[in-house]
Amino acid sequence: MRIDVLTLFPPMLDGFLSESMLGRAQAAKLLEIKVHNLRDWTKDKHNTTDDRPFGGGAGMVLKCEPVFAAIEELQTPGCRRIYLTPDGTPLSPALALELSQQQHLVLLSGHYEGIDQRIREKVIDQEVSIGDYVLTNGTLAAAVLIDALARFIPGVLGEEKSLTTESFTSKLLDFPQYTRPAVYRDMSVPEVLLSGNHGEIEKWRHAKQVEKTSSVRPDLLK
Amino acid sequence: MRIDVLTLFPPMLDGFLSESMLGRAQAAKLLEIKVHNLRDWTKDKHNTTDDRPFGGGAGMVLKCEPVFAAIEELQTPGCRRIYLTPDGTPLSPALALELSQQQHLVLLSGHYEGIDQRIREKVIDQEVSIGDYVLTNGTLAAAVLIDALARFIPGVLGEEKSLTTESFTSKLLDFPQYTRPAVYRDMSVPEVLLSGNHGEIEKWRHAKQVEKTSSVRPDLLK
Repeated sequence: MRIDVLTLFPPMLDGFLSESMLGRAQAAKLLEIKVHNLRDWTKDKHNTTDDRPFGGGAGMVLKCEPVFAAIEELQTPGCRRIYLTPDGTPLSPALALELSQQQHLVLLSGHYEGIDQRIREKVIDQEVSIGDYVLTNGTLAAAVLIDALARFIPGVLGEEKSLTTESFTSKLLDFPQYTRPAVYRDMSVPEVLLSGNHGEIEKWRHAKQVEKTSSVRPDLLK
Repeated sequence: MRIDVLTLFPPMLDGFLSESMLGRAQAAKLLEIKVHNLRDWTKDKHNTTDDRPFGGGAGMVLKCEPVFAAIEELQTPGCRRIYLTPDGTPLSPALALELSQQQHLVLLSGHYEGIDQRIREKVIDQEVSIGDYVLTNGTLAAAVLIDALARFIPGVLGEEKSLTTESFTSKLLDFPQYTRPAVYRDMSVPEVLLSGNHGEIEKWRHAKQVEKTSSVRPDLLK
Protein backbone atom coordinates (compact mmCIF):
# COMPACT_ATOMS: atom_id res chain seq x y z
CA MET A 1 0.00 0.00 0.00
CA ARG A 2 1.19 3.49 -0.83
CA ILE A 3 0.22 6.66 1.01
CA ASP A 4 1.13 10.17 -0.13
CA VAL A 5 0.64 12.97 2.40
CA LEU A 6 0.39 16.58 1.25
CA THR A 7 1.05 19.13 3.98
CA LEU A 8 2.58 22.53 4.67
CA PHE A 9 4.51 21.06 7.63
CA PRO A 10 6.24 17.83 6.54
CA PRO A 11 8.65 17.68 9.53
CA MET A 12 5.66 17.30 11.87
CA LEU A 13 5.52 13.67 10.74
CA ASP A 14 9.23 12.81 11.00
CA GLY A 15 9.19 11.13 14.40
CA PHE A 16 5.83 9.50 13.90
CA LEU A 17 6.83 7.82 10.64
CA SER A 18 10.18 6.50 11.78
CA GLU A 19 9.16 5.13 15.18
CA SER A 20 7.41 2.06 16.43
CA MET A 21 4.98 0.17 14.24
CA LEU A 22 5.10 2.48 11.23
CA GLY A 23 8.88 2.46 11.03
CA ARG A 24 8.84 -1.34 11.04
CA ALA A 25 5.98 -1.56 8.53
CA GLN A 26 7.87 0.61 6.07
CA ALA A 27 11.12 -1.29 6.59
CA ALA A 28 9.19 -4.50 5.85
CA LYS A 29 7.75 -2.89 2.67
CA LEU A 30 4.20 -3.41 3.90
CA LEU A 31 3.60 0.30 3.58
CA GLU A 32 5.24 3.06 1.58
CA ILE A 33 4.57 6.54 2.97
CA LYS A 34 5.78 9.72 1.31
CA VAL A 35 5.31 13.17 2.79
CA HIS A 36 5.28 16.10 0.38
CA ASN A 37 5.47 19.84 0.95
CA LEU A 38 2.59 21.59 -0.81
CA ARG A 39 4.87 24.57 -1.27
CA ASP A 40 6.86 22.56 -3.83
CA TRP A 41 3.95 22.99 -6.24
CA THR A 42 3.77 26.79 -6.03
CA LYS A 43 5.03 28.76 -9.00
CA ASP A 44 5.34 32.34 -7.74
CA LYS A 45 8.49 33.66 -6.15
CA HIS A 46 6.89 33.92 -2.68
CA ASN A 47 5.68 30.30 -2.78
CA THR A 48 2.16 31.44 -1.94
CA THR A 49 -0.17 28.67 -0.80
CA ASP A 50 -2.97 30.71 0.74
CA ASP A 51 -4.92 33.94 0.36
CA ARG A 52 -7.73 35.85 2.07
CA PRO A 53 -11.29 34.49 1.78
CA PHE A 54 -13.79 35.96 -0.68
CA GLY A 55 -16.68 37.47 1.24
CA GLY A 56 -14.49 38.39 4.22
CA GLY A 57 -13.74 36.73 7.51
CA ALA A 58 -10.70 35.81 9.60
CA GLY A 59 -7.89 33.56 8.50
CA MET A 60 -6.41 32.39 5.26
CA VAL A 61 -7.68 29.88 2.71
CA LEU A 62 -5.56 27.33 0.85
CA LYS A 63 -5.46 28.20 -2.85
CA CYS A 64 -6.52 25.99 -5.76
CA GLU A 65 -3.38 26.13 -7.90
CA PRO A 66 -0.76 24.29 -5.81
CA VAL A 67 -3.26 21.70 -4.55
CA PHE A 68 -4.66 20.83 -7.99
CA ALA A 69 -1.10 20.59 -9.34
CA ALA A 70 0.10 18.39 -6.47
CA ILE A 71 -2.84 16.01 -6.47
CA GLU A 72 -2.85 15.69 -10.24
CA GLU A 73 0.82 14.75 -10.13
CA LEU A 74 0.51 12.26 -7.27
CA GLN A 75 -2.78 10.54 -8.06
CA THR A 76 -2.94 7.14 -9.74
CA PRO A 77 -5.95 5.43 -11.36
CA GLY A 78 -8.28 4.14 -8.65
CA CYS A 79 -6.52 5.92 -5.80
CA ARG A 80 -8.56 7.49 -3.00
CA ARG A 81 -8.00 11.23 -2.46
CA ILE A 82 -8.87 12.20 1.10
CA TYR A 83 -9.11 15.61 2.74
CA LEU A 84 -8.72 15.67 6.53
CA THR A 85 -11.22 18.15 7.98
CA PRO A 86 -13.48 18.46 11.02
CA ASP A 87 -16.33 18.76 8.49
CA GLY A 88 -15.77 15.22 7.23
CA THR A 89 -17.19 11.78 7.92
CA PRO A 90 -16.05 10.65 11.39
CA LEU A 91 -13.20 8.14 11.34
CA SER A 92 -14.35 4.74 12.62
CA PRO A 93 -12.77 1.28 12.74
CA ALA A 94 -14.98 0.28 9.79
CA LEU A 95 -13.66 3.21 7.73
CA ALA A 96 -10.07 2.50 8.81
CA LEU A 97 -10.50 -1.13 7.72
CA GLU A 98 -11.95 -0.11 4.36
CA LEU A 99 -9.13 2.36 3.72
CA SER A 100 -6.52 -0.24 4.70
CA GLN A 101 -7.67 -2.31 1.72
CA GLN A 102 -6.93 0.41 -0.86
CA GLN A 103 -3.83 0.33 -3.03
CA HIS A 104 -3.09 4.03 -2.87
CA LEU A 105 -4.23 6.95 -0.74
CA VAL A 106 -3.48 10.64 -1.23
CA LEU A 107 -4.06 12.56 2.02
CA LEU A 108 -4.47 16.33 1.95
CA SER A 109 -3.84 18.15 5.25
CA GLY A 110 -5.30 21.62 5.07
CA HIS A 111 -5.02 24.85 6.92
CA TYR A 112 -7.39 24.94 9.85
CA GLU A 113 -9.17 27.97 8.42
CA GLY A 114 -10.15 26.05 5.33
CA ILE A 115 -9.33 25.33 1.74
CA ASP A 116 -10.88 26.57 -1.47
CA GLN A 117 -14.15 24.73 -2.02
CA ARG A 118 -13.26 23.96 -5.64
CA ILE A 119 -10.50 21.66 -4.39
CA ARG A 120 -13.04 19.72 -2.36
CA GLU A 121 -15.39 19.43 -5.30
CA LYS A 122 -12.92 18.43 -7.99
CA VAL A 123 -9.86 16.60 -6.65
CA ILE A 124 -11.10 15.10 -3.36
CA ASP A 125 -13.03 11.82 -3.18
CA GLN A 126 -13.71 11.67 0.53
CA GLU A 127 -13.58 13.96 3.57
CA VAL A 128 -12.62 12.43 6.90
CA SER A 129 -12.71 13.87 10.43
CA ILE A 130 -10.74 12.40 13.33
CA GLY A 131 -12.98 14.12 15.89
CA ASP A 132 -15.18 17.06 16.82
CA TYR A 133 -12.43 19.53 17.66
CA VAL A 134 -10.16 21.88 15.72
CA LEU A 135 -6.44 21.35 15.13
CA THR A 136 -3.94 23.94 13.90
CA ASN A 137 -3.66 22.01 10.66
CA GLY A 138 -4.53 18.59 9.29
CA THR A 139 -1.08 17.03 9.55
CA LEU A 140 -1.69 15.29 12.87
CA ALA A 141 -5.06 14.15 11.55
CA ALA A 142 -3.29 12.45 8.64
CA ALA A 143 -0.98 10.72 11.14
CA VAL A 144 -3.97 9.49 13.16
CA LEU A 145 -5.67 8.17 10.03
CA ILE A 146 -2.51 6.34 8.95
CA ASP A 147 -2.00 4.83 12.41
CA ALA A 148 -5.63 3.69 12.66
CA LEU A 149 -5.67 2.02 9.24
CA ALA A 150 -2.14 0.56 9.32
CA ARG A 151 -3.16 -1.77 12.15
CA PHE A 152 -5.51 -3.54 9.72
CA ILE A 153 -2.82 -4.25 7.11
CA PRO A 154 -1.81 -7.91 7.49
CA GLY A 155 1.64 -8.21 9.04
CA VAL A 156 1.87 -4.66 10.37
CA LEU A 157 1.12 -5.48 13.99
CA GLY A 158 4.03 -7.35 15.57
CA GLU A 159 2.05 -10.49 16.30
CA GLU A 160 -0.88 -11.65 14.19
CA LYS A 161 -3.28 -10.94 16.97
CA SER A 162 -7.00 -10.90 16.97
CA LEU A 163 -8.39 -7.40 16.78
CA THR A 164 -11.83 -8.55 17.82
CA THR A 165 -11.57 -7.99 21.54
CA GLU A 166 -10.52 -4.34 21.28
CA SER A 167 -12.55 -1.21 21.76
CA PHE A 168 -14.94 -0.45 18.92
CA THR A 169 -14.96 -3.69 17.05
CA SER A 170 -17.89 -4.16 19.42
CA LYS A 171 -20.02 -1.23 20.48
CA LEU A 172 -18.92 -1.62 24.09
CA LEU A 173 -15.92 -0.02 25.75
CA ASP A 174 -13.18 -2.30 27.06
CA PHE A 175 -13.24 -4.19 30.34
CA PRO A 176 -10.64 -3.38 33.05
CA GLN A 177 -7.26 -5.04 32.61
CA TYR A 178 -4.88 -6.17 35.34
CA THR A 179 -1.41 -7.64 35.29
CA ARG A 180 1.16 -8.71 37.90
CA PRO A 181 1.64 -8.16 40.76
CA ALA A 182 -1.69 -9.54 42.02
CA VAL A 183 -1.41 -7.19 45.00
CA TYR A 184 0.15 -3.78 44.53
CA ARG A 185 0.21 -1.34 47.46
CA ASP A 186 -2.74 -3.16 49.08
CA MET A 187 -4.76 -3.07 45.86
CA SER A 188 -5.78 -6.56 44.78
CA VAL A 189 -6.75 -7.84 41.38
CA PRO A 190 -10.44 -8.94 41.36
CA GLU A 191 -10.58 -12.54 42.51
CA VAL A 192 -12.53 -13.80 39.53
CA LEU A 193 -9.55 -13.04 37.26
CA LEU A 194 -7.37 -15.37 39.33
CA SER A 195 -10.00 -18.13 39.40
CA GLY A 196 -9.14 -19.82 36.12
CA ASN A 197 -12.89 -20.11 35.49
CA HIS A 198 -13.15 -18.76 31.94
CA GLY A 199 -16.94 -18.67 31.90
CA GLU A 200 -17.02 -16.52 35.02
CA ILE A 201 -14.24 -14.30 33.69
CA GLU A 202 -16.15 -13.68 30.45
CA LYS A 203 -19.30 -12.90 32.38
CA TRP A 204 -17.49 -10.46 34.70
CA ARG A 205 -15.74 -8.74 31.80
CA HIS A 206 -18.95 -8.30 29.85
CA ALA A 207 -20.73 -6.85 32.89
CA LYS A 208 -17.87 -4.38 33.36
CA GLN A 209 -18.06 -3.38 29.70
CA VAL A 210 -21.76 -2.64 29.95
CA GLU A 211 -21.25 -0.76 33.21
CA LYS A 212 -18.43 1.42 31.82
CA THR A 213 -20.20 2.11 28.54
CA SER A 214 -23.43 3.10 30.30
CA SER A 215 -21.53 5.49 32.51
CA VAL A 216 -19.02 7.08 30.06
CA ARG A 217 -20.63 6.68 26.63
CA PRO A 218 -24.36 5.97 26.86
CA ASP A 219 -24.59 7.21 23.24
CA LEU A 220 -22.90 3.99 22.08
CA LEU A 221 -25.75 1.89 23.50
CA LYS A 222 -28.54 3.64 21.62
CA MET B 1 1.60 26.13 31.18
CA ARG B 2 3.56 22.95 31.61
CA ILE B 3 2.76 19.59 30.01
CA ASP B 4 4.56 16.33 30.80
CA VAL B 5 3.97 13.44 28.41
CA LEU B 6 4.66 9.86 29.51
CA THR B 7 5.07 7.41 26.63
CA LEU B 8 6.97 4.33 25.51
CA PHE B 9 7.79 6.06 22.20
CA PRO B 10 9.13 9.57 22.89
CA PRO B 11 10.63 10.07 19.39
CA MET B 12 7.12 9.84 17.87
CA LEU B 13 6.62 13.43 19.09
CA ASP B 14 9.93 14.95 17.94
CA GLY B 15 8.72 16.49 14.70
CA PHE B 16 5.35 17.50 16.06
CA LEU B 17 6.81 19.41 19.01
CA SER B 18 9.48 21.30 17.08
CA GLU B 19 7.40 22.37 14.09
CA SER B 20 4.86 25.04 13.39
CA MET B 21 2.77 26.52 16.15
CA LEU B 22 4.05 24.33 18.99
CA GLY B 23 7.67 25.04 18.23
CA ARG B 24 6.96 28.77 18.32
CA ALA B 25 4.82 28.52 21.47
CA GLN B 26 7.63 26.78 23.32
CA ALA B 27 10.24 29.25 22.05
CA ALA B 28 8.02 32.07 23.32
CA LYS B 29 7.74 30.32 26.74
CA LEU B 30 3.97 30.13 26.43
CA LEU B 31 4.14 26.39 26.81
CA GLU B 32 6.73 24.03 28.26
CA ILE B 33 6.38 20.46 27.03
CA LYS B 34 8.53 17.59 28.25
CA VAL B 35 8.35 14.09 26.84
CA HIS B 36 9.45 11.25 29.12
CA ASN B 37 10.16 7.59 28.44
CA LEU B 38 8.20 5.38 30.82
CA ARG B 39 11.02 2.87 30.63
CA ASP B 40 13.19 5.28 32.66
CA TRP B 41 11.11 4.40 35.71
CA THR B 42 11.56 0.63 35.48
CA LYS B 43 13.87 -1.02 37.99
CA ASP B 44 14.50 -4.50 36.63
CA LYS B 45 17.34 -5.27 34.27
CA HIS B 46 15.01 -5.91 31.30
CA ASN B 47 13.22 -2.56 31.77
CA THR B 48 9.87 -4.34 31.81
CA THR B 49 6.86 -2.07 31.36
CA ASP B 50 4.17 -4.62 30.52
CA ASP B 51 3.02 -8.14 31.30
CA ARG B 52 0.25 -10.57 30.32
CA PRO B 53 -3.30 -9.87 31.53
CA PHE B 54 -4.77 -11.70 34.51
CA GLY B 55 -7.73 -13.77 33.35
CA GLY B 56 -6.25 -14.34 29.89
CA GLY B 57 -6.66 -12.63 26.56
CA ALA B 58 -4.44 -11.26 23.79
CA GLY B 59 -1.93 -8.51 24.19
CA MET B 60 0.09 -7.01 26.97
CA VAL B 61 -0.93 -4.71 29.80
CA LEU B 62 1.08 -1.77 31.14
CA LYS B 63 2.26 -2.52 34.69
CA CYS B 64 1.59 -0.48 37.81
CA GLU B 65 5.14 0.02 39.11
CA PRO B 66 6.75 2.25 36.45
CA VAL B 67 3.60 4.31 35.92
CA PHE B 68 2.97 4.99 39.62
CA ALA B 69 6.64 5.92 40.03
CA ALA B 70 6.65 8.23 37.01
CA ILE B 71 3.42 10.04 37.80
CA GLU B 72 4.32 10.43 41.46
CA GLU B 73 7.61 12.01 40.46
CA LEU B 74 6.14 14.35 37.82
CA GLN B 75 2.89 15.45 39.44
CA THR B 76 2.55 18.82 41.20
CA PRO B 77 -0.21 20.00 43.56
CA GLY B 78 -3.35 20.76 41.54
CA CYS B 79 -2.05 19.26 38.31
CA ARG B 80 -4.43 17.28 36.08
CA ARG B 81 -3.34 13.69 35.32
CA ILE B 82 -4.89 12.48 32.09
CA TYR B 83 -4.91 9.05 30.47
CA LEU B 84 -5.50 8.97 26.70
CA THR B 85 -7.77 6.04 25.88
CA PRO B 86 -10.64 5.26 23.50
CA ASP B 87 -12.66 4.50 26.66
CA GLY B 88 -12.44 8.11 27.81
CA THR B 89 -14.59 11.21 27.58
CA PRO B 90 -14.60 12.44 23.97
CA LEU B 91 -12.34 15.45 23.35
CA SER B 92 -14.36 18.55 22.49
CA PRO B 93 -13.53 22.23 22.06
CA ALA B 94 -15.06 22.86 25.51
CA LEU B 95 -12.77 20.28 27.08
CA ALA B 96 -9.76 21.61 25.16
CA LEU B 97 -10.55 25.12 26.39
CA GLU B 98 -10.89 23.95 29.99
CA LEU B 99 -7.59 22.04 29.85
CA SER B 100 -5.83 25.06 28.29
CA GLN B 101 -6.57 26.95 31.52
CA GLN B 102 -4.71 24.48 33.76
CA GLN B 103 -1.21 25.18 35.08
CA HIS B 104 0.12 21.67 34.66
CA LEU B 105 -0.99 18.52 32.83
CA VAL B 106 0.53 15.05 33.01
CA LEU B 107 -0.49 12.98 29.97
CA LEU B 108 -0.18 9.20 30.04
CA SER B 109 -0.08 7.45 26.66
CA GLY B 110 -0.79 3.79 27.11
CA HIS B 111 -0.41 0.62 25.17
CA TYR B 112 -3.39 0.01 22.95
CA GLU B 113 -4.16 -3.27 24.72
CA GLY B 114 -4.66 -1.47 28.00
CA ILE B 115 -3.09 -0.52 31.27
CA ASP B 116 -3.53 -1.92 34.75
CA GLN B 117 -6.84 -0.71 36.15
CA ARG B 118 -5.22 0.29 39.44
CA ILE B 119 -3.33 3.03 37.59
CA ARG B 120 -6.61 4.44 36.30
CA GLU B 121 -8.16 4.35 39.75
CA LYS B 122 -5.31 5.84 41.76
CA VAL B 123 -3.08 8.18 39.73
CA ILE B 124 -5.36 9.34 36.88
CA ASP B 125 -7.83 12.21 37.28
CA GLN B 126 -9.45 12.16 33.86
CA GLU B 127 -9.65 9.83 30.84
CA VAL B 128 -9.88 11.43 27.41
CA SER B 129 -10.59 9.91 23.98
CA ILE B 130 -9.72 11.65 20.71
CA GLY B 131 -12.19 9.50 18.76
CA ASP B 132 -13.97 6.18 18.35
CA TYR B 133 -11.11 4.24 16.80
CA VAL B 134 -8.04 2.39 18.03
CA LEU B 135 -4.45 3.59 17.68
CA THR B 136 -1.29 1.53 18.17
CA ASN B 137 -0.57 3.56 21.28
CA GLY B 138 -1.67 6.78 22.91
CA THR B 139 1.27 8.94 21.83
CA LEU B 140 -0.47 10.47 18.81
CA ALA B 141 -3.56 11.00 20.95
CA ALA B 142 -1.45 13.07 23.37
CA ALA B 143 -0.21 15.13 20.41
CA VAL B 144 -3.77 15.75 19.23
CA LEU B 145 -4.85 16.81 22.72
CA ILE B 146 -1.90 19.21 23.02
CA ASP B 147 -2.57 20.71 19.58
CA ALA B 148 -6.29 21.15 20.28
CA LEU B 149 -5.76 22.88 23.63
CA ALA B 150 -2.69 24.95 22.71
CA ARG B 151 -4.80 26.98 20.30
CA PHE B 152 -6.75 28.35 23.25
CA ILE B 153 -3.67 29.60 25.12
CA PRO B 154 -3.47 33.37 24.58
CA GLY B 155 -0.65 34.27 22.21
CA VAL B 156 -0.11 30.78 20.78
CA LEU B 157 -1.90 31.38 17.50
CA GLY B 158 0.11 33.71 15.28
CA GLU B 159 -2.51 36.43 15.17
CA GLU B 160 -4.95 37.06 17.99
CA LYS B 161 -7.82 35.90 15.89
CA SER B 162 -11.35 35.16 16.81
CA LEU B 163 -11.98 31.46 17.25
CA THR B 164 -15.71 31.92 17.16
CA THR B 165 -16.32 31.32 13.47
CA GLU B 166 -14.57 27.95 13.38
CA SER B 167 -16.04 24.47 13.33
CA PHE B 168 -17.49 23.33 16.66
CA THR B 169 -17.57 26.56 18.55
CA SER B 170 -21.04 26.48 17.03
CA LYS B 171 -22.81 23.19 16.46
CA LEU B 172 -22.76 23.71 12.70
CA LEU B 173 -20.03 22.63 10.30
CA ASP B 174 -18.18 25.34 8.40
CA PHE B 175 -19.40 27.11 5.29
CA PRO B 176 -17.47 26.72 1.99
CA GLN B 177 -14.44 28.98 1.62
CA TYR B 178 -13.09 30.48 -1.60
CA THR B 179 -10.04 32.56 -2.41
CA ARG B 180 -8.45 34.01 -5.53
CA PRO B 181 -8.61 33.50 -8.42
CA ALA B 182 -12.34 34.20 -8.79
CA VAL B 183 -12.40 31.91 -11.78
CA TYR B 184 -10.17 28.84 -11.81
CA ARG B 185 -10.43 26.38 -14.73
CA ASP B 186 -13.96 27.62 -15.49
CA MET B 187 -15.05 27.23 -11.90
CA SER B 188 -16.37 30.49 -10.49
CA VAL B 189 -16.68 31.66 -6.94
CA PRO B 190 -20.38 32.05 -5.95
CA GLU B 191 -21.47 35.55 -6.93
CA VAL B 192 -22.79 36.49 -3.53
CA LEU B 193 -19.26 36.34 -2.12
CA LEU B 194 -18.12 38.98 -4.59
CA SER B 195 -21.14 41.22 -3.94
CA GLY B 196 -19.82 43.11 -0.93
CA ASN B 197 -23.28 42.72 0.62
CA HIS B 198 -22.39 41.43 4.07
CA GLY B 199 -25.96 40.67 5.08
CA GLU B 200 -26.43 38.46 2.02
CA ILE B 201 -23.04 36.82 2.56
CA GLU B 202 -23.91 35.93 6.15
CA LYS B 203 -27.27 34.54 5.05
CA TRP B 204 -25.68 32.43 2.30
CA ARG B 205 -22.97 31.11 4.61
CA HIS B 206 -25.46 30.15 7.31
CA ALA B 207 -27.66 28.33 4.79
CA LYS B 208 -24.61 26.40 3.54
CA GLN B 209 -23.68 25.46 7.10
CA VAL B 210 -27.11 24.06 7.79
CA GLU B 211 -27.11 22.22 4.45
CA LYS B 212 -23.70 20.63 5.04
CA THR B 213 -24.43 19.71 8.64
CA SER B 214 -27.76 18.10 7.72
CA SER B 215 -26.06 16.05 5.05
CA VAL B 216 -22.78 14.99 6.74
CA ARG B 217 -23.52 15.18 10.49
CA PRO B 218 -27.26 15.18 11.21
CA ASP B 219 -26.34 14.00 14.74
CA LEU B 220 -25.03 17.51 15.53
CA LEU B 221 -28.46 19.02 14.91
CA LYS B 222 -30.33 16.82 17.40
